[in-house]
Amino acid sequence: MTDRFGLDLLGVMAYGQLSAFERLSSDARFSPSLRDRAILGRMAVTEFGNFELVVGRLSSLGQDVETAMLPFQASIDAFHERTRPADWYESIMKAYVIAAISADFYRAVSQFLDPETAQLVLQMQDSATTSAGLQERVRQMLDDDPRLASRLALWGRRLVGEALTQAQRVRIERAVLPGVGTFHAELMAGLTRNHSLRMSQLGLTA
Amino acid sequence: MTDRFGLDLLGVMAYGQLSAFERLSSDARFSPSLRDRAILGRMAVTEFGNFELVVGRLSSLGQDVETAMLPFQASIDAFHERTRPADWYESIMKAYVIAAISADFYRAVSQFLDPETAQLVLQMQDSATTSAGLQERVRQMLDDDPRLASRLALWGRRLVGEALTQAQRVRIERAVLPGVGTFHAELMAGLTRNHSLRMSQLGLTA
Repeated sequence: MTDRFGLDLLGVMAYGQLSAFERLSSDARFSPSLRDRAILGRMAVTEFGNFELVVGRLSSLGQDVETAMLPFQASIDAFHERTRPADWYESIMKAYVIAAISADFYRAVSQFLDPETAQLVLQMQDSATTSAGLQERVRQMLDDDPRLASRLALWGRRLVGEALTQAQRVRIERAVLPGVGTFHAELMAGLTRNHSLRMSQLGLTA
Repeated sequence: MTDRFGLDLLGVMAYGQLSAFERLSSDARFSPSLRDRAILGRMAVTEFGNFELVVGRLSSLGQDVETAMLPFQASIDAFHERTRPADWYESIMKAYVIAAISADFYRAVSQFLDPETAQLVLQMQDSATTSAGLQERVRQMLDDDPRLASRLALWGRRLVGEALTQAQRVRIERAVLPGVGTFHAELMAGLTRNHSLRMSQLGLTA
């Protein structure tokens, strides 16, 4: 059985994927090479494919997709407005950071989902994070121009700060996370820790 | 054997598809409903899938994809700059008009291609024109608001004018179309005729 929490999670994922698709593919235009345009494009297409999977799941549960997405539109749009990449480097960094932290988040909360929804969520997160070799591309970009490091480290911190703020906002407005007292604090700590780990793997100070 | 014309055609298609993907998915953000956002999104994803097919074909011919696309980048970018949709209605009309006229064009010139490339081209055009029920959506939009008709008829004329101008420019710069004297004039006449037919099917004066 998919409960209120499960439906909310599907709604937030669907809108997150649809808007990630649009942002990534618009950002792709500013890529330094045609090859790089295709990297963000592939990632965008993966997001859209995942969006269609969630839509399928919501429909099979008899839920209206727009209704499920609407409560999350404002905070996700606000997140993107507050984290507009200034150039292609910031775009690809944003794609990488957000895909990774979203995957961590959805993996962590999937324990509260019915098995079928949980499986769908885990499967999608894998495809989102492995798509397009993003980490590899970020690393190569930093090798090519080490002066980018300090700017991108700062950018990574801002992205995560905004992501956690918006997640918090959604949690308070919708009370979507199950009310396990310490779970939320641990989750936030875990997300931050994993993000720092990824940043240091890239040679950046998080 | 894929000759110079075939390679040029694959190059222009690849860049056309990659940029259509980016434009459609950015335009999607201005859709009146989340459902409509998904229509342009699906169409964008189909274009990206076709782009990847062309990339696969160019690679299997030992051609560098960027090199194949580069000669066409300026004129396709110019086309898009000169036909920026003012709103979602113009976006969806552009998607429909350009998908249809491109399909006509590629079908007409496929007779000059080696069989394998020709087959790939025909297969892709089918998927591009049937995707997302665009014609249906344009018709419904005109039913909902008949005042749109005159603006969109004008817009359709401008789109086709710009598309034919850019196609002409590419033809002259690259000498890409086989030098059959009357073929070109007949092709342009045929494209214009089919476009007019589609406009009148929508109740618009082309």
